[in-house]
Amino acid sequence: MTSTLLTGIAELVTNDPSVGDGSPLGLFRDAALVVEGGRVMWVGPAGRAPDADRRRDLGGRAVIPGFVDSHAHLVFAGDRAAEFAARMAGTRYDGGGIATTVAATRAADDAELRELLRDRIAEMRAQGTTTVEVKSGYGLTVADEVRALRLAAEVTPETTYLGAHVVPAGVDRDDYVPLVTGEMLRACAPHARWVDVFCEPASPHAFDGDEAREILMAGRDAGLGLRVHGNQLSAGPGVRLAVELGAASVDHCTHLTDADVAALADGDTVATLLPGVEFSTRSPYPDARRLIDAGVTVALATDCNPGSCYTSSMPLVAALAVREMRMTPAEALWAATAGGARALRRDDIGVVAPGRRADLTVLEAPTYLHIPYRPGVPIARALEDLG
Amino acid sequence: MTSTLLTGIAELVTNDPSVGDGSPLGLFRDAALVVEGGRVMWVGPAGRAPDADRRRDLGGRAVIPGFVDSHAHLVFAGDRAAEFAARMAGTRYDGGGIATTVAATRAADDAELRELLRDRIAEMRAQGTTTVEVKSGYGLTVADEVRALRLAAEVTPETTYLGAHVVPAGVDRDDYVPLVTGEMLRACAPHARWVDVFCEPASPHAFDGDEAREILMAGRDAGLGLRVHGNQLSAGPGVRLAVELGAASVDHCTHLTDADVAALADGDTVATLLPGVEFSTRSPYPDARRLIDAGVTVALATDCNPGSCYTSSMPLVAALAVREMRMTPAEALWAATAGGARALRRDDIGVVAPGRRADLTVLEAPTYLHIPYRPGVPIARALEDLG
Ligand SMILES: [Zn+2]
Ligand SMILES: [Zn+2]
Repeated sequence: MTSTLLTGIAELVTNDPSVGDGSPLGLFRDAALVVEGGRVMWVGPAGRAPDADRRRDLGGRAVIPGFVDSHAHLVFAGDRAAEFAARMAGTRYDGGGIATTVAATRAADDAELRELLRDRIAEMRAQGTTTVEVKSGYGLTVADEVRALRLAAEVTPETTYLGAHVVPAGVDRDDYVPLVTGEMLRACAPHARWVDVFCEPASPHAFDGDEAREILMAGRDAGLGLRVHGNQLSAGPGVRLAVELGAASVDHCTHLTDADVAALADGDTVATLLPGVEFSTRSPYPDARRLIDAGVTVALATDCNPGSCYTSSMPLVAALAVREMRMTPAEALWAATAGGARALRRDDIGVVAPGRRADLTVLEAPTYLHIPYRPGVPIARALEDLG
Repeated sequence: MTSTLLTGIAELVTNDPSVGDGSPLGLFRDAALVVEGGRVMWVGPAGRAPDADRRRDLGGRAVIPGFVDSHAHLVFAGDRAAEFAARMAGTRYDGGGIATTVAATRAADDAELRELLRDRIAEMRAQGTTTVEVKSGYGLTVADEVRALRLAAEVTPETTYLGAHVVPAGVDRDDYVPLVTGEMLRACAPHARWVDVFCEPASPHAFDGDEAREILMAGRDAGLGLRVHGNQLSAGPGVRLAVELGAASVDHCTHLTDADVAALADGDTVATLLPGVEFSTRSPYPDARRLIDAGVTVALATDCNPGSCYTSSMPLVAALAVREMRMTPAEALWAATAGGARALRRDDIGVVAPGRRADLTVLEAPTYLHIPYRPGVPIARALEDLG
C-alpha cells in the first residue's frame, strides 16, 4: 500500500478534542495528514509531518471529516416538483403525496432505480458527503421493499428498512402492521442494518405509539438497530419510545415536551434535526439550542426525499442550523459529521484520527466557517472526487 | 460560423411571453434551440427544429436564460468569516467591518486581486450565472478605485463605480464627498458603466439623501448610468431619489413606505432584492409581494460581498425568494434572469429569443421548479461550462 502525505491544509477539523486547539472540533491550523489504504495514519502540524510515499498539496484549503448524512430516502423514481410549488403557494403539506412516489417507484425497473440512486450518491459526494444512510419506504410491498434495500446495499452499509413509512393507499392498517412486522420484515432484514418507523399519531398515514413499538421491537428481534421518525408534526410518543427502546437516533424532533428533552438528555439516543424539511415546508424549526443546552447529542441530516425536502446538501443544512436554529458554526459542523456518525453508531467515521477511515472532505475555503458564511455555494467535496 | 442544434431540452424557459405557454416565462416542453456565433438563431418545439451544422443532446435537462446577477462586490481581498461567526452569535452588524476589507484590498497586488476576481466569476458561472455586475468600493482612494474598475472591466462590461460605498476610516466626509464627485469620478468614469451610492442615513459610514443626490448627479454628468443602495437599514430617501433621478435600479428595498412603493410603481426603476443579505445577517426580508402586487419590476441578485452576504449563488437567492418572500418559483426565476437584465438595462440577455445572446444555463433537472425545490444543490451551470 502507498502512503500519501496531504499538505497545504490551512485548517483541519478533526472532531478529536484531545488534539489541536482542544475544542470539540479539535482544530489544527497549517496541518498535515498521512493516509494509507483508506485509513488515517497520522494527524498533526505541517512542520512535524513524517515522510510518505506520495505528497499532495491542497493549496491552502480546509479539510473536514466527510459529512455523515444519517437520514435520507434515496430509492425512488419521479419527483414532486408540482406539489412543492403548490405548497409554496400556500397548500398545507400532510404527507399524502407519498403515494405518488410509491407508484412511480414501483413502476420503475431495477436499472432505472439503480441509476437514480447512484446519481444521488454522486451528487452528495460532490457536496462533501462521504457516508449516507439510505431508507426503503417507497415500495411498501414485500417485493418492492426488498428491492429497495438490495439496491441501497450496493451503495452503503447504512441501509434502513422503512416498510413503516406510511400505510399504503388501499391497504388496511390492521393488515399492514402485521405484514411490516412479519413477512416483509423477514424478507428485508437480511438486507438492512436498521429498522425505522414514521411515528406520528397526527398523520392518518403514519403510525401511532403502539404500532411503532410493535414495529421497532419486531425489528430488534430480527437483529436490526432502531431509528425513529418522531415528533415531526406534533409532540407525539416517538421521542420517548425511541429513548426507551435504545434507538440510535430519533429524527425530526420538531415538537418536544420537557419530558421528551429530559428523556433525550438521560438516554443514549441522538436527536437528529432535519432543518431542510422546515425550509422546504415553510414550517417552524426545531429548537436546537434547547436540546444542546440540555446536553442532548444533536446530529444534522438532510432527510433528502422528493416530498418534504429534496435537498441533498449537507452544507445548506449546516447553514440553516446556524441561521435558523442558532447553532454555532462549530456546533453545526460537529453535528453534520461526528453527530451523524453517533446517530449511526459508527466510530470509524466522523473523526479524523489515526486508525479511522480517511473519509475526508475538502473545502474551497481556508476555514470551515465558510460553510455557513457562503450558503448555497458548492465549496465542499469529497477528497477522492477532487481530481 | 458553425450553427449548433441543442436538443433533449425537457423544458425551456425563454422569458418571452409571446411564445411557448404564453406565461411570463414563455415555457416550452420538449424544446430545441439553434445557436450560432454566441447568438440564439431559432427557438421552438423539438419536432419542428431546423437543421444545423452540429447537434448536441442535453439529455432531458431544463434550459433557462443564464442568471443575471446585477449586484455584486467581487474586487476584494481577505474575508470576514470571524465577523460572520460573531454576528451569528448575536453581535449586530453595523457595516463597520468594511474597513477590514478595504485594508486587505489595498494591500493586495494586482495579480492577487485579478486571480481572486476571476475565481469568483468562475464560481458564479459554475452556478449558472452568465452576467454579473461588479462594483468597486473597497479601494476608496483614487488609485485603488481605478484599479478595481480596471480589473472589473477585464471580466464584465457591467462595471460600477462605488467610491461612495462608505466614508473611509480617517477621512472627513466633507472632504470625501467632493473627492468622490471630483477627482475620483474623473479617474474612474472611463472604466465604469454605472455609478452607485450607499444611501443610508441610519449608518454613520454611508451617505444621506443630499450627499447621494450630489454623487449620482455628478456621475450622470460624467456619462454613467445610476444605481442606488437604498432603504436597507431604514426607510430613508434612497428609493425615491433613485426613481426621481431615473436610476436603473435601487437595491435592497428592505424598509419601504407606501410612498416608496408608489414611486417605484410609477417610475422606471427596478427594485432589486438581495435576500442573501437578510439570510446572512438574520434580518427581516423585504416584502416582495407588496412590490409585485403594486406592479413594480423586481429583480433578484446576490450582493456577493465579504461582509453582509458572501454567497455567489443565484439559485439559493431564488430559493430564498420563494421560501422567505413568497415569490412563486416562476416570479423568482424571472426576477433572477429577465429582472436582472432590466436592472442593467440590457435587452440582449435575460430572454432566450432569436437575436439575443446565447447565454444559456442548463439544469440537472427536468424543470426550473427544481431551483427552489432542491435548495443548495448545485444543479445549475452555464452551458459553456457543461463540458
Ligand atoms: Zn425521513
Ligand atoms: Zn451591495
